[in-house]
Amino acid sequence: MPIKGFRFSAVEAAIKKPGRLDLALIFSDLPADVAAVFTTNKVAAAPVLISRKRAGKGRCRAVLVNSGNANACTGEQGMADALDCGRRTAEALGLPDEELLIASTGVIGQALPLERFRGAIQPLVDALAGGTLDQVASAIMTTDTFAKIERRSGEAGGKSYQIEGVAKGAGMIQPNMATMLSFMVTDAAVDPALLRSSFGEAVEGSFNSITVDGDMSTNDTALIIANGAAGNPTITAGTPEAGAFLALLQDLMLTLAKNIVQDGEGATKFVTIRVRGAASKADAKKAALAVANSLLVKTAFFGQDANWGRIIAAVGYSGAQIEQDRVEIRFDDVLMTAGGVFAGGDAEAAGTEVLKRKEFTVTIDLRVGAGEADVYTNDLSYDYVRINADYRT
Amino acid sequence: MPIKGFRFSAVEAAIKKPGRLDLALIFSDLPADVAAVFTTNKVAAAPVLISRKRAGKGRCRAVLVNSGNANACTGEQGMADALDCGRRTAEALGLPDEELLIASTGVIGQALPLERFRGAIQPLVDALAGGTLDQVASAIMTTDTFAKIERRSGEAGGKSYQIEGVAKGAGMIQPNMATMLSFMVTDAAVDPALLRSSFGEAVEGSFNSITVDGDMSTNDTALIIANGAAGNPTITAGTPEAGAFLALLQDLMLTLAKNIVQDGEGATKFVTIRVRGAASKADAKKAALAVANSLLVKTAFFGQDANWGRIIAAVGYSGAQIEQDRVEIRFDDVLMTAGGVFAGGDAEAAGTEVLKRKEFTVTIDLRVGAGEADVYTNDLSYDYVRINADYRT
Repeated sequence: MPIKGFRFSAVEAAIKKPGRLDLALIFSDLPADVAAVFTTNKVAAAPVLISRKRAGKGRCRAVLVNSGNANACTGEQGMADALDCGRRTAEALGLPDEELLIASTGVIGQALPLERFRGAIQPLVDALAGGTLDQVASAIMTTDTFAKIERRSGEAGGKSYQIEGVAKGAGMIQPNMATMLSFMVTDAAVDPALLRSSFGEAVEGSFNSITVDGDMSTNDTALIIANGAAGNPTITAGTPEAGAFLALLQDLMLTLAKNIVQDGEGATKFVTIRVRGAASKADAKKAALAVANSLLVKTAFFGQDANWGRIIAAVGYSGAQIEQDRVEIRFDDVLMTAGGVFAGGDAEAAGTEVLKRKEFTVTIDLRVGAGEADVYTNDLSYDYVRINADYRT
Repeated sequence: MPIKGFRFSAVEAAIKKPGRLDLALIFSDLPADVAAVFTTNKVAAAPVLISRKRAGKGRCRAVLVNSGNANACTGEQGMADALDCGRRTAEALGLPDEELLIASTGVIGQALPLERFRGAIQPLVDALAGGTLDQVASAIMTTDTFAKIERRSGEAGGKSYQIEGVAKGAGMIQPNMATMLSFMVTDAAVDPALLRSSFGEAVEGSFNSITVDGDMSTNDTALIIANGAAGNPTITAGTPEAGAFLALLQDLMLTLAKNIVQDGEGATKFVTIRVRGAASKADAKKAALAVANSLLVKTAFFGQDANWGRIIAAVGYSGAQIEQDRVEIRFDDVLMTAGGVFAGGDAEAAGTEVLKRKEFTVTIDLRVGAGEADVYTNDLSYDYVRINADYRT
């Protein structure tokens, strides 16, 4: 069933190279609630500064998003440009400025091509008549190699509802922020406080549990808009419907997050770093992130080298509490390390076989407590270097 | 003038591939003081555990060091092996075990080739008759492409003295530890407390101010041995001689540290990240390290792409206090960023010219205080990936 009460559009505004969609619009026919998270980088782009303030009020009807230019480090001019484009779009939609959020992604430090941007606004609004969320997913891509879109259906009080979401990622992916850009929409009626708490929990387990290169962008934005067009009785906290909504949202966002990692710049492997037996959940995540971000670990994955020593070394400097002689490491089902030392037998050969897979899980059991965390990462390849050495040219 | 009262040797023990020096010895003819720092990684190699304890007593006559095998994550067997090799060497030198320190570097998680190691000990001790520090510098290399050795001369109370040092680095270089391995010797007579404080200060500005890949090894060890053989009146704190000794030591260790960065795995550029105007020295170092470790910044250096946006983004997530609209960034003398935005004019072309140099300085002036720090880094190239994807094979 199609999602109710939302319209979408995307056009070519020539902000990116010609011939590619680069300007998109998400629009709710009805008043709607929004929950959002933004980069924690102190160097935040103009659209982030604007949207953070507006989203704080909890209401949102539309999201205007461009790729090809981040409008970051553009000073007062960048702020004026973002406000101007937002105002023109809100006007064309018949909305107050405050109910439109703005997001941008692309190169830092260059002024928006204002004339082209402005010229594309009316066509963008007109295209709402026949646009799709798939077009939005395409329009927000930068170095992504595939569009990321997910859909889930649920039911509450006998009414079915939809949750749909898009994301873009590739490089500069690191927790403690949103992902690069991700927009979720749902026609479910959800209590606003529940929407915020559910979204926060889903972000923590998805976009805040992935890493590509440890860099943190100036523009990261993730948000969800709920407009209640499905007509269900409002989902409230502590009910089975709230649990079901959270589960669907988590599943959708985790899938988007994993797709971002899978499409990480130059990635040839998708790796789950699973820490068990940590002193706390925070410790587990610390250890998992240190491993997931280690260049030596990531290059060893690329080389299909069963180098568990680099993994235990990363755990050692992660800051997590460990006892070296208790650590166990597995590559999928193969025990590589027991009691902090090489497990022996045919572990080397069997572990190497695991690393030849496109996807595998590294399980690190610290055996000091009950803290657990999963983090998703990829390998570091020649192509990561190639892509990032000449991204702008 | 040759350094007095020290002897050196190195042999081929076939711990690395045959035909390369891989076992070395530094020996003081006289009783000597030692100051040392070790990795802060909680996964520490057996030789680190042993040497940390012994160095804590402040006295040392000899250092036994091998490359090709880190003896890390080798459990009780690794500890027994290290103690055994140390004891045999001390015996052959006529020393108590406690006055010999041990260091290892190489692959993690494999047992030492004990028979070959033991068999090389007597030849190693015999070779002290004609060995050199240059041989030691060669024997400790792993993926290093050149040996790192520095010598300085000073004078105190009319007696000239020498400071000499060797280092090995390449990958897994990150502050808050020593470098991989570095050994300094001096024939100056230095008050033991002054030796410790001077060494600590020199480490902070050298080995703790460089980064190659952000990884932290299990084996890092840096130390200085002073035996007083120069016959100078003991250098004590608060004297001009103490200042001169510190300056020489700093210069020597900074040169070794820079050589490690220059020889970073796959490096094609040597870059100084200079932060000025930070709220504190700690903030300055935080900001400099975030930039120096950013994969996006390091790949842009490799691509000779004047992408100042990635630099300001890294400063933004560094945790340092900043005001975005005050930040200035220079590539050597070229102003790239002023007031947090692109400086305009021909900065793009001029900045790109700077990045074509083999060595350049990125100066980031935060303009919020007086904190300053320099950090040394390099670029991230295809060769870094190649070297680390198949280091073990």
